[in-house]
Amino acid sequence: MSAASLDVIGLGNAIVDVLAPAADAFLTRHGISKGTMTLIDAERAESLYAAMGPAVETSGGSAANTIAGIASLGGSAAFIGRVKDDVLGKVFTHDIRALGVRYETSMATEGAPTARCLILVTPDAQRSMNTFLGASQALGPDDVDETLVASASITYLEGYLWDPPEAKQAFRKAMDTAKKNGRRVAFSLSDPFCVDRYRTEFRELINKQAIDILFANEHELCALYQVGGFDEALQAARGRVPMAALTRSEKGSVIIAGNEIHVVDAVPPTRLVDSTGAGDLYAAGFLYGLAHGRPLPACGKLASLCAAEAISHMGPRPETSLKALAARHGL
Amino acid sequence: MSAASLDVIGLGNAIVDVLAPAADAFLTRHGISKGTMTLIDAERAESLYAAMGPAVETSGGSAANTIAGIASLGGSAAFIGRVKDDVLGKVFTHDIRALGVRYETSMATEGAPTARCLILVTPDAQRSMNTFLGASQALGPDDVDETLVASASITYLEGYLWDPPEAKQAFRKAMDTAKKNGRRVAFSLSDPFCVDRYRTEFRELINKQAIDILFANEHELCALYQVGGFDEALQAARGRVPMAALTRSEKGSVIIAGNEIHVVDAVPPTRLVDSTGAGDLYAAGFLYGLAHGRPLPACGKLASLCAAEAISHMGPRPETSLKALAARHGL
Repeated sequence: MSAASLDVIGLGNAIVDVLAPAADAFLTRHGISKGTMTLIDAERAESLYAAMGPAVETSGGSAANTIAGIASLGGSAAFIGRVKDDVLGKVFTHDIRALGVRYETSMATEGAPTARCLILVTPDAQRSMNTFLGASQALGPDDVDETLVASASITYLEGYLWDPPEAKQAFRKAMDTAKKNGRRVAFSLSDPFCVDRYRTEFRELINKQAIDILFANEHELCALYQVGGFDEALQAARGRVPMAALTRSEKGSVIIAGNEIHVVDAVPPTRLVDSTGAGDLYAAGFLYGLAHGRPLPACGKLASLCAAEAISHMGPRPETSLKALAARHGL
Repeated sequence: MSAASLDVIGLGNAIVDVLAPAADAFLTRHGISKGTMTLIDAERAESLYAAMGPAVETSGGSAANTIAGIASLGGSAAFIGRVKDDVLGKVFTHDIRALGVRYETSMATEGAPTARCLILVTPDAQRSMNTFLGASQALGPDDVDETLVASASITYLEGYLWDPPEAKQAFRKAMDTAKKNGRRVAFSLSDPFCVDRYRTEFRELINKQAIDILFANEHELCALYQVGGFDEALQAARGRVPMAALTRSEKGSVIIAGNEIHVVDAVPPTRLVDSTGAGDLYAAGFLYGLAHGRPLPACGKLASLCAAEAISHMGPRPETSLKALAARHGL
């Protein structure tokens, strides 16, 4: 196995986020479950957008945000995910490439438009996401450049895209390629709704040791092992997955790796504005640290700092250089 | 003259802003003059966008931002300005209507795309704007609904759009309609570059008493009267224009009205992030106060508070309800 020339390659949905503040009553009125992600069709996207307040647009997508974070930390990263050749597709492509990320997935020239996610941000800074997947779903195994995957220290996959059969094939191809080349595979459970849908398959991936590093929040891990509390879920995960970073919002996170276990405090954000992207940026900090051989507690601290940056403003992508931010915090 | 059913109607460019942080060296390298607005063509827009960092998109346009601010304060407002029927045109339309603003200018179905403004935000929170005017320039007198203008207490015009002959005709028609109906006309000088181009015409508008309320910052007013310092410019404006709100960034503002003169402190922003829209939101607070019959010092305080909100985040439009913000500050 040769030295990795890339820190991380991410595979996931290529989405433009449309973010608007909303009152709790808006969520109730429109049947939106707070804090989760719901898939919507074009018609619902239209009607929900019409009902939403004034919005801002910014590139998003869970794994894409993580990859953007790694690039902002100064890491070398690539992304695989599909947009259409339309205005939002160009926005997505610009934003990720402008960070120095290698992003070469061909644009769809027909079919559904570029994916968008309508995000309602309530006064408690929670985000409730409504995703029209559009062109994002059209990812297939042919989009997975094996040479590129083989060159990355870690291949990172978001559970959100574990749905269309072609995309699953793309994920499996990427996992196989990484493993064959002695690289590590990281996987995010993404959302309790994803876990409910694919519990058996996610557990199988873990049991087959296809996943080296698991990212999950408390709710997702509890859903995976169908247990009621965090500690129970933690015990279920221990020994089953080589490494896991388990996030608990303001309670911080717990990192497990074999017999090692670290309890990491959250970093309080300078302002509590919008939690969109907090988990994605946590993963960015953690994977950057890991790819650069830092000890696990240092990876956790960097992860928490990156998450706090994401929470301090509207939108999931870092607003400032994470590299400079980390340096100011001695990380 | 009947009671006004609208507080303010604004006429101006209908623009989507594309904002990215940038180092000072980026401005130098790309020949961008800090803090000002430069018109660019499609080709330059393309090459500058390619060179910019990752961006966020949000509705903008100077007078449109002011109108959005008035609506956010709870005022009744309308906007006239042209977009094309494309993705960005729909974004602009959604955002302004979602605030309850009456916006009915027909979308262009051919010709240039919706206007966009590439905004580089330097670490000192200064914004340098590069505007591709696109469909915005196609505003003409037929777009001015006289009944709507007649129903507004104040008609607000941005100097930025004082350029294409058809748009000037639209402005003159709106001014005449307002005057004929006993309403007031407010005008913003917008930018020193606009003043340099149209000094004679702007002075003539003032001398003919076509303008009741003038908005200008220090640099614009000095450019208008070709004097070297603020006090000289202030003396030149006094007696020439019935009312003026003259802004000086962190030094606050000076309001003159006949023999009345008020010196108003700036409100320090909670965070110094991006000054885009600060002047536009100052105008929003001032015009809202004026339309609601508040005394000038109170109008100035509200104006300063709204400007501070705009500076505390990326993008020109208020991120929070200005009505609630004003209430929290006892305004």
